[in-house]
Amino acid sequence: MQLISKRVTMTPIQRLNPAHRPIPPALRLVVGLALLVVLGTLLLMLPISASGPPLTWNEALFTATSALSVTGLSIITPVTALSTFGQVVLLLLIQIGGVGFMVVAVVILRLLGRKVSLVDRLTLSDSLGLLVPGAIISITRRMLVTVVLIEGVGALALFLHWQRDPRLSVEQAAFFALFHAVSSFCNAGFDLFTGTPGFPEGIPRDNLSLIILGSLIFIGGLGIPVITDLLIYYRERRLSLHTRITLIVVTFLVISGMVGFFVAERRVDVGALRDEPLSRQLLITLFQSVSARTAGFAGIADFSDLTPPSQLLMITLMFIGCPPASMGGGITTGTFAILTISLWGFARGLPTPQFGGRSLATGTARRAAAVLTISLFVVLLATWLILITHKGVTMDAAVFEVVSAFATCGLTLNFTSQLNLFGQMVIILVMFWGRLGALTIIIALAQPGRPQLISYPEEQILIG
Amino acid sequence: MQLISKRVTMTPIQRLNPAHRPIPPALRLVVGLALLVVLGTLLLMLPISASGPPLTWNEALFTATSALSVTGLSIITPVTALSTFGQVVLLLLIQIGGVGFMVVAVVILRLLGRKVSLVDRLTLSDSLGLLVPGAIISITRRMLVTVVLIEGVGALALFLHWQRDPRLSVEQAAFFALFHAVSSFCNAGFDLFTGTPGFPEGIPRDNLSLIILGSLIFIGGLGIPVITDLLIYYRERRLSLHTRITLIVVTFLVISGMVGFFVAERRVDVGALRDEPLSRQLLITLFQSVSARTAGFAGIADFSDLTPPSQLLMITLMFIGCPPASMGGGITTGTFAILTISLWGFARGLPTPQFGGRSLATGTARRAAAVLTISLFVVLLATWLILITHKGVTMDAAVFEVVSAFATCGLTLNFTSQLNLFGQMVIILVMFWGRLGALTIIIALAQPGRPQLISYPEEQILIG
Ligand SMILES: [K+]
Ligand SMILES: [K+]
Repeated sequence: MQLISKRVTMTPIQRLNPAHRPIPPALRLVVGLALLVVLGTLLLMLPISASGPPLTWNEALFTATSALSVTGLSIITPVTALSTFGQVVLLLLIQIGGVGFMVVAVVILRLLGRKVSLVDRLTLSDSLGLLVPGAIISITRRMLVTVVLIEGVGALALFLHWQRDPRLSVEQAAFFALFHAVSSFCNAGFDLFTGTPGFPEGIPRDNLSLIILGSLIFIGGLGIPVITDLLIYYRERRLSLHTRITLIVVTFLVISGMVGFFVAERRVDVGALRDEPLSRQLLITLFQSVSARTAGFAGIADFSDLTPPSQLLMITLMFIGCPPASMGGGITTGTFAILTISLWGFARGLPTPQFGGRSLATGTARRAAAVLTISLFVVLLATWLILITHKGVTMDAAVFEVVSAFATCGLTLNFTSQLNLFGQMVIILVMFWGRLGALTIIIALAQPGRPQLISYPEEQILIG
Repeated sequence: MQLISKRVTMTPIQRLNPAHRPIPPALRLVVGLALLVVLGTLLLMLPISASGPPLTWNEALFTATSALSVTGLSIITPVTALSTFGQVVLLLLIQIGGVGFMVVAVVILRLLGRKVSLVDRLTLSDSLGLLVPGAIISITRRMLVTVVLIEGVGALALFLHWQRDPRLSVEQAAFFALFHAVSSFCNAGFDLFTGTPGFPEGIPRDNLSLIILGSLIFIGGLGIPVITDLLIYYRERRLSLHTRITLIVVTFLVISGMVGFFVAERRVDVGALRDEPLSRQLLITLFQSVSARTAGFAGIADFSDLTPPSQLLMITLMFIGCPPASMGGGITTGTFAILTISLWGFARGLPTPQFGGRSLATGTARRAAAVLTISLFVVLLATWLILITHKGVTMDAAVFEVVSAFATCGLTLNFTSQLNLFGQMVIILVMFWGRLGALTIIIALAQPGRPQLISYPEEQILIG
């Protein structure tokens, strides 16, 4: 290191002719979602989709992106602005954006070589990183059957509960049950109660509704790899490392969130839950904690009532988000786990990050650092762009809105409606990014590296 | 991966008797700074240090920590609360906390095995990671001479400029010149103008004052390894990778900050600089950008005037901070550079992070990820603790205050004076942490790892 090392220059290598390259799977995912957004926008702009005047292009684009990215931020009130046809379109967009995308993501993840141990097993451990077409169909069918069963049970439970509500007709109760079961399971956060005359405070917050909706949100938020891993646990008696870590992290996040909200919101002077009995405080904080990371249903009526410590907690939970290949966004619980494990291992002086008797694969920490870095960058840039173009907006509200879009969460401090056209476009892009996830976008947009035939000498730099 | 691998259990290894272990250097740094804080607190509590009633223990503790960590946040007004003796104590604490600590850090960094190429060269490339006592004295002397020269030239320039100011006597001009040269070079952010009758807006903001102060801040913010590397450039004609990266990152950050402030603050309707001529807008935004990352002098009179986008930009710049072994805090420009380079390399599919014909040393990315993770955690936890214990505080103000303490910056949205006792203690701890830096604290507090004789099987987990 003291000597001046000779510089090694890279040998330029003839690039492959781009015309002959197959479209990489990650790029297909990006293009596929973009095409769906265009299709959804066009459908929502049809006069038949609106109950009054047709949606403008930006309203339709915002709503379609929000539905397909299962975010739930909205510049319209769905139940009043959309006809029943429009509401069905919205429901389908949520289902496609949630379930369809999750299934495709699992299949494509496999193609990208990021191994899902469950999928491995389902596909008889294909070791070449390529799925047999038959296996794709088989996995997809299993996943869809699982999803339909869960949503069906949830919708039935909601219907049985809501059809007793005098404010809803039986048809309404049935459609609302279906819509909200899908919206909950897909963690979409869209609801049809806000704007319905009998429900001035949005979704029903009675205990049973919160329990059913919360369960659907929780299951959807676990992600397909974890759900299927759990479903076959009785046979295999073994959970993959991914499932174990996901369950630990999710439990930790839900409990932290619950405790945090509980401490902040039951304070007698300022808390939003100060007037509720203890059992309701517990249930609502649990629901809010489950819902906060991505679902976007509000457990308390007016989110602007939330105290500042809860706003900060919410932003943190949203930013961490859900497991990969789930309904949620954020940096993902996987990245969070890797960063924590890596930090712990570093502090203990371990040669590699380790957890539960396993070393993490080489490069995992580097990948997690990349995800965190680019995510911080995207959130900060989007927030700055909104702040510089909107007057009278506090940093709080803007950060909350952007992180909510980034995590495809959909909670808001009542700021979405104040966005100007430029702000709407920024939020649309962030939602789009949030649904795809940092890794997919990096891989899709990055120019494929040329094979490197030389290696550079190492040098240290200080990092403080 | 499909098979159930056998678990390998760790062989317990007899620990060394802790009584025989030498105190690790990082822990010495932590204990040393803590002892200095106690000493400084006691000195400032002496009746002779105060101009009126003696400082309370928490005022003295806060001021001593703020001075020794070169932060500059203050719950007292130094020029009115402290006697001349007290102001000299403050000056000495700043000098020890800034220069002394920086020198010790460079020496100890070397002992920790984090190689500083310059120091390497100065010590005739000791390859065992241990310094010869004679070399320590020699390095220390060189560094101190450099520092005294820079501060002396700065103080002289300030004196020549300020002694013409009718509001200051010659003795005042001399003491103020010395105090602010040290405070600027140490990036401490304490000033004696705030509270002086002739200067209702704090430090003089004429062009020459800003240029002299800004230059001292900039040089101090580069850090000893970079300064000495630059000083011997004419002989060696080669800069270390650390210096090259630091200069690139600092230039990038200063320009980004300047452009960002310029765009936000000259807007005709809301910007804090809307009434200034263009040349002043350019100078002030440049000064503010240089000062923002750690120095803590305000280029505009009232920081609450700052628009939200500039608040966000400031928080980002502070969080990134300064190079390691400099006067600043934050995650350090080194960590920022590693994360960026690592992200870029990952996106390009490179086997290792690379920059300028060098591979980054193995584990560097993992270390940078650890620093970023723990820093985010500390900032979020401290902010939450403050929000939960203070009424009527917005998230903006609390985040700004905590990041300012974390980066030992000292800028504030006028929130420091509103802190209750608990909040003061939180900020004291964050300033303490900020001056030491994440790596030092992790290494000091972590239990040394037992040598690991087995390696665990690898397993992938998804990170989204
Ligand atoms: K959502
Ligand atoms: K400072």
